[in-house]
Order: sequence, then C-alpha cells, then structure tokens
Amino acid sequence: MTTQDRIGAARLRAKVMQAEDAAALIPSGSTIGLSGFTGSGYPKAVPTALARRIKAAHDAGDPFRIRAWTGASTGPELDGALAEADGIEFRLPYNSDPIARAKINSGAMDYFDMHLSQVAPMAWQGFLGPLDIAVIEVTGIRSDGTLVPSSSVGNNKTWLDRADKVILEVNRWQNPAIEGMHDIYYGTALPPNRVPIPLVHPGDRIGDTGFRCDPDRIVAIVETDAPDRNLPFSAPDDTARAIAGHLLEFLGHEVARGRLPPNLLPIQSGVGNIANAVLTGLIDAPFEQLTAYTEVIQDGMLDLIDSGKLRLASATAFSLSPEAAARVNRDMAQWRDKMILRPQEISNHPELIRRLGCIAMNGLLEADIYGNVNSTHIMGSRIQNGIGGSGDFARNGYISIFMTPSTAKGGKISAIVPQVSHVDHIPQDVQVIVTEQGLADLRGLSPKQRARRIIDTCAHPDFRPALADYFDRACRGSYGLHAPSLLNEALSWHQRFIETGSMRP
Amino acid sequence: MTTQDRIGAARLRAKVMQAEDAAALIPSGSTIGLSGFTGSGYPKAVPTALARRIKAAHDAGDPFRIRAWTGASTGPELDGALAEADGIEFRLPYNSDPIARAKINSGAMDYFDMHLSQVAPMAWQGFLGPLDIAVIEVTGIRSDGTLVPSSSVGNNKTWLDRADKVILEVNRWQNPAIEGMHDIYYGTALPPNRVPIPLVHPGDRIGDTGFRCDPDRIVAIVETDAPDRNLPFSAPDDTARAIAGHLLEFLGHEVARGRLPPNLLPIQSGVGNIANAVLTGLIDAPFEQLTAYTEVIQDGMLDLIDSGKLRLASATAFSLSPEAAARVNRDMAQWRDKMILRPQEISNHPELIRRLGCIAMNGLLEADIYGNVNSTHIMGSRIQNGIGGSGDFARNGYISIFMTPSTAKGGKISAIVPQVSHVDHIPQDVQVIVTEQGLADLRGLSPKQRARRIIDTCAHPDFRPALADYFDRACRGSYGLHAPSLLNEALSWHQRFIETGSMRP
Repeated sequence: MTTQDRIGAARLRAKVMQAEDAAALIPSGSTIGLSGFTGSGYPKAVPTALARRIKAAHDAGDPFRIRAWTGASTGPELDGALAEADGIEFRLPYNSDPIARAKINSGAMDYFDMHLSQVAPMAWQGFLGPLDIAVIEVTGIRSDGTLVPSSSVGNNKTWLDRADKVILEVNRWQNPAIEGMHDIYYGTALPPNRVPIPLVHPGDRIGDTGFRCDPDRIVAIVETDAPDRNLPFSAPDDTARAIAGHLLEFLGHEVARGRLPPNLLPIQSGVGNIANAVLTGLIDAPFEQLTAYTEVIQDGMLDLIDSGKLRLASATAFSLSPEAAARVNRDMAQWRDKMILRPQEISNHPELIRRLGCIAMNGLLEADIYGNVNSTHIMGSRIQNGIGGSGDFARNGYISIFMTPSTAKGGKISAIVPQVSHVDHIPQDVQVIVTEQGLADLRGLSPKQRARRIIDTCAHPDFRPALADYFDRACRGSYGLHAPSLLNEALSWHQRFIETGSMRP
Repeated sequence: MTTQDRIGAARLRAKVMQAEDAAALIPSGSTIGLSGFTGSGYPKAVPTALARRIKAAHDAGDPFRIRAWTGASTGPELDGALAEADGIEFRLPYNSDPIARAKINSGAMDYFDMHLSQVAPMAWQGFLGPLDIAVIEVTGIRSDGTLVPSSSVGNNKTWLDRADKVILEVNRWQNPAIEGMHDIYYGTALPPNRVPIPLVHPGDRIGDTGFRCDPDRIVAIVETDAPDRNLPFSAPDDTARAIAGHLLEFLGHEVARGRLPPNLLPIQSGVGNIANAVLTGLIDAPFEQLTAYTEVIQDGMLDLIDSGKLRLASATAFSLSPEAAARVNRDMAQWRDKMILRPQEISNHPELIRRLGCIAMNGLLEADIYGNVNSTHIMGSRIQNGIGGSGDFARNGYISIFMTPSTAKGGKISAIVPQVSHVDHIPQDVQVIVTEQGLADLRGLSPKQRARRIIDTCAHPDFRPALADYFDRACRGSYGLHAPSLLNEALSWHQRFIETGSMRP
C-alpha cells in the first residue's frame, strides 16, 4: 500500500514525517490530548518517540515533562512508555497501565480520575486549561481533509477541535472498511446554547462518519502499521459464571414482573471476566433483539452478535483481545452495520443514558453493608484504575447493578466490608449487588434493611458472621441509628489487611 | 367564598367531606403518596386526622402504620404529626422534620433518601412497589376536572397518575391567581419510549397548567384554609456574607476569564442563610438578566426579582418564610409571570441540568481534604435531612460549588476533616469549596493538589495545623500515595467528638 491509499488530501502528504521528527515538535510543559480508549486507537509511534526524547533530556539534566489527556486507558507504547520515562507530570481521566499506576501510587505522577462523560465538556468550558497539541490515531485522511477514525473515538473530536497543533498517526493496520462505522456528533455547544441530543434509539446515527480538522493546524503526519495492544481474553471461571447466573435469573424475573420489556433495555457492561460471563450467558437466555449502549465492545459481544441475540452495539471503543481484534478487523465490512463508535461524551452522556434506560452493569473493588461502592482505591489510598464511566451509568441507568466475587486475594480480602475505604458510588446509585453467593435487590430499602440483605445474600460465609456481629453492635452503639456505624472499627478490616496481609482476624 | 369557587366540577362536589372521614378511607399498611416540598403545598388536614386515628388505634392495641412517599420535606401537620403518632413505617425521599428525624435516628422509622429526580421515574418503573392512595393539596378543581396545583408540585403528577385512590385537599388560603404559574410536563414515558425533553431555556413552558386526574379515582375532597408552614427567615450573618463575598468574586473572575457568560448561567441554590446571602449579594453584583433553574424559590429570590436582576425563576416549590409567603400570595398575579413551578423530575432532571449548564450551589455538613462531601450524616450515622436534589445538580451542573462555615457547634466541629464519615458527593462532583476563610478552586487538580488547597484555603486556622500534619504524615505512611490516608486516624476526629463533644484534641 502507498501513502496515497490512506492520505487522500494531497496537500497534507507533504506533512508526513518520522515519529522522531513529530515528537520533536512537542515542547516540555505541553498539554497533549491523545487518542486512545481501553487499548484501542491510541497513537503508537509518536508517544514512544517522545518517551525516548524525554529520557535523553533527563539524561542531559533537562526536567522534560508533559501533561497528558486521553480518552481513557491506552496501550503500553503510550502510558507505559511515557510513565517509564518519568515524562508525565499530570494525567487524566482514566489509567490502567501498570507502570503509570505505580508512578501514581508512589506519588511521582499526578492523576485526576474524571467522569468520562465530563472530560470533553469541561475541556470546552476551559476548566482544564489550554490544550497545546493533539496526537490522534486515524485510519485515513479523505481527500476533503476529514479524518476516518480508528478503533476508538474517545475525546478525539474535542482534542482536534481544541488543540493549537495536531499530529496525526495514520494506522494502516486497521481495515479501511472501518470507514462508516463511526458517528461523530457535531451538535454539542456550550450553554446557554445547548440543545437536546437527537438520539432516541441506540442505533440512531446523528453525526458525521469522520472528524473535521483544520488542515492548517496539522503539523505532522506519521504512518504506522501496528495493531492495538489489548489484554488477552480469559475465559469465565466458576465464580464469574455463578455471578452471571444470578444476574440472568434476576433479569428474567424483572421481565416476568413487567418491570423490564421482553427484549430488556440497552445493556451497558464493564469489561472483564464477569462481564464476559454475563454476555456469554445471554446467548442462551430467552431475550431477543438486544441492544447495547455502552462504553466498549468486548469479546463477549461478538459472539452475542453472531448468535443473533444482539442486534446492535453502540460504544466509544473496541476493547477486544488480540484474537477478537483480528477477527473484527478481518471481516470489518460485516461488523460495521452492527456497531457504532461515538465520542465518549455521547456514549456516556447522562441525557442519553437516562433516556434510553440503560441496564448498568459494573464491577467493584468493595462494597459496604449499606451499599456504598468503592471502584477505585485499594485500602482507600492506592488507585487501581479509575472511576471511568461507571458514575455516568450508575446514576443515570434504568437500574444500576454492581458485580464482584465475594472475596479477593485467595480469600484474604472480603469484598463486603463494614465501611468502604473510599466511595465512588453512593447507595442511591446502587440498586443491585451480585456476588457468586447471591443477588441483593436493594430497591426501596432503608440503610438497615440494605445491610441485612447484603450481609445475608452477598457476603462470603467466612466473613458473614463478623459482618453480622459488626452490624449488630453498631445497631446498639452507634451515634445515630439511621446508618449505624462504629467509627473506631469501621476501617479496621483494611488496616488489618495492611498490617497482616489479610482481613481475617 | 363558597365550595363552588374552588371546585368547578359539579359532580366532584359530592365528594367533599371532613378530614376525619377522608382519613378513615386509609387502611393500615397503605403506601401513601403525599404532596409537599420544603413545607409548601403539603396536605394540612388529612394527615393530622390520620395521625389521630393512628394514635387511637395504637391505644386500642392495633399496630396501625403507613408508608409515606412525598416530594421532599413537608410541614409539622404531616411529617411531625404522623411521626409523633409512630404512624410511619417507611418514608422517602427527604425529611427535615425534627420529630421524624429523631424517630429515624433512634431506629424507630425506616427512611430512604433518594435523589429527588429519581423518585418519579423509579415509582413508574415499579421499583418502589404499589401506591395505594394519593393525598394531594391543590388550590382548585376546574370544571373540566383538571386540578390547579398549589405552592409545590413535587411528585404530585406521578402520585395522581399512579395511586389507586386519590384524596384531594383544596386549600383556599392560596390565592387563586396562582393558576397559570405551573408547567406540568406530560411527555415522560418509560424506556424504550422516552424522548428528548423539549426545554432549552429556564423559562420554556412545555406542559399543562394543571394536573389531569381520573375523577373516578377521587374518593374524597377536603377543604382547608391554612397557610404553608415554612421556617422563618434569618438574616445572613457575617460568616454567610463572607462566604457569599468569596463566591461572587469567583463568579466575576470566571466571567472576566470568559468561562461564564456575563449574565452567568441558570442558578441552582440550596436553601438557608448562606444561600440567601448569595442571592442578596447578587442584587449589587454586576450580573444582569439572571435566571434560576432550581428546586425552590426562597426569600432572597424575591428581592432579586424586585431589583430587576433576576428575570425568571423555575423551581418545583416555594420555600418562603411566612412573611415572604404572604407577600407572594398577596400579589400572586404580579409574581406569576416571573416564576414557574414544575414537577421535581423536571426541575431536577439530569438532562436539563446538564443542557442548561446550571451553576450548582449547595451546602454541606463536612468535606474532607480530598473534596469528598458529606451532606447528610452527622458523625457518619445520624441523618440530618437528606441528599435531596444536591446529587442531581452537583453531578450535572456546569460547575458544582459547595459552601459551608469552616466550623460548627461554636468551633468544636471542623467542617474540613481528614476523611468524611459519610460520602454524598465524590471529588469528581465537587469543583469548588467555599468557607468564610476562602474559596478553593479544585478544577483539574489531583487529590494531593486538592488537599493542599483545601487545607490552606478553606479550613479554619484552629484546625489547619492538625489537618496539614495529618496530610504530611499520610504522605509518608499511607498504603498508596494517590490519595494518602491513615486508616487508624482517618475517622478519629469524629470519634473524639462523640466521646468528648469536640473535635479539638
């Protein structure tokens, strides 16, 4: 293939250069808006070249660092390389890279973990400061200068619109048949000029198939040929299948009671083992013509589409194993009609999530007996990944479901604790909690009613007596008896884990 | 005046009866949907009669209790009377009555404190169970059977639509000129049939001026003549004026930097002393043609309208002092064009708050050094009022501001603590914290950056050294250094208050 295949706009071909030369255009102190969402569609050459440049600068005594804004997590060639080079001063909104995580938790790197729906609007509102440079992976540049997006959309539209300068990576690994899958909505505005977003079904197309970009701001184009680097798929284990079983039984019950339509409502699903078990379980469940309105399209959705059960999936990115990514890329023209990738401010927009009535299904690190959920901070202080879009979906969904194994670390950590060490989701946003032990339906319950149900239904039997004992004593010795607590003891399970490596007494 | 003045539908006049007779239609175990929002528009005769009936039943050994759903807080003739009679088994979504609060905190009454925007949709979704009876205050029944709402709208539309039976109180204290002030939107639906809500300016009218109600479900009509019983207005003190001063300076700064339009964006304001100080301060501030899109219209807004600065206020209820309520009621025809009262699912709808870009201003009980906010639970377990609509506005507003004096209880409680004892609002939903000490602009900061700014700017000088000391030690001894914490000490300030009556060492 030639450059001409992917870069239709002749005047832009003169801007093609090596990644090193593009990285040289980025000064220390820059704020960079990067493409990338869960390991898809992130730039693969310029950040690595920039990391090399930063290392060289550091070796020469120059404290070169940049500020990085992304869609969500990216790949090792971006977050990993830049973090390893100690090149990131500040990062938002979501990270799952292990090297960056270690830097954040050692205090070497500042990080702010925003709601994914709010990143683009707050950038537009000027709340995050100026954006100097956008570095965006695309799959092509059309002759009219518009850009064909890649395997994630994320905040790319906003970075392209807001940045003073634009560096494009044109990735020719991605099948050009991806063109037409995207729906880039250009109707957002700042208040007082915002209007209703005209999307009423998950499959509605309300925008363009590509990004607009002022060619004069494009300062470099780099050609690449590397696949996305997502995590391998791990098959659901017994615990994940048990959780999925409880959840599918619950959904069936809700349909039977008339509280959900027979084809459910648009599914939002987090990623990982349990989410894939739920999606796999839906293949054999009695729900037809399903739709998904979610953040990412993961492995389990492909089989669900193949089975004919899932009619359509709307998301902002792929989050596929290498095998599944190759499978989609090979037959892109076939998948293109069943999938839509949108900006994350649209995939996660509260207006749309509430309107569509998404069934929100997310994971958690720990929940407490009142149904507060910690999705992010291990033992209250060590960040795992980030809140991501879970707050967008949990507060605005038709029903908000959280799923977790009842224990972690080989049984040393209970996922149900007296009081969570950090709160991401308040009880008002948590209607259902599911573990392999069972499903607690918390709708319409007071805090004490919730506590009894969570302890009896969700906690692991090894920890249940201690939780019940704590709750009983709190019901006698608490300052107030609305949500009884013993403040001297509320966080003691976490402290014990820190001191002994186990929450067990 | 005669019955005919207020009850135009002749066939309904036969249903007029005494409150005792109407209360006799409510069986034990009923779930009742009551009107009322912050002491406005609540039924004043039937709940009191029901409380008497419950007391008599209890005296006779009959464990008579009901489940109560409201708009938000009500008046002493409702929550106070029924709670005092031990007549409420379960209540939602917001309470500020001191007798009910005491019952909740002693464990005698179950309570669930929902987001105010979610009560109506979740009732429709069937998540809260069946609704047996609605008891709704109106100001008139038109000849076509539609109902003229009173001084609050709250969830009345939904209770009228959903209840098996309806009891109306027709309150003739309210000036009949209130007719036409209300905007009752009938376009809501359950998903998958929800559509965009066609409101793009705070003053848009998108519904009816009255409630529809199937006359066959009306089982009783009771005539009343009592005013609402709101709390007296207390003039802002020096602390409130200092907080308002910081906030108004900030808003001016935002306009100067181009991050807010010159006439700001629609204001949402909680109630109370500080909120009134802000509203009073706006009279002399350089912002013209203001609008409010908020939950309640409070005293300070009347003067702001009179001054010509506030063009229009949209809310779901009045929350006025007795004097201000009389003032509005006297000249209702004059105020009617400047005010709109809507269902609370519309006044608080995430779709509309995000679209309009509301400036959210709410109070808090305590915030921690990372900007987690506790609005509800004193010392983590004793409920004060409830989350109300603060979660609707804080997460979806253009900018979310929380205001508080830096100390409480004569300086024995610090409003800034190492870790909040309960979380209602997570750091992602808290962009600005203001105390009389200063204003902390937290936008785009990492947790540790937030901590330094909150301690330095918002904390009272008496507590600042201890907070800085805690944070410094946490930055050395924490499990993770993303949001450093010392779990053994994080809640010790609260425990010390419980044990000694003061957070001071």
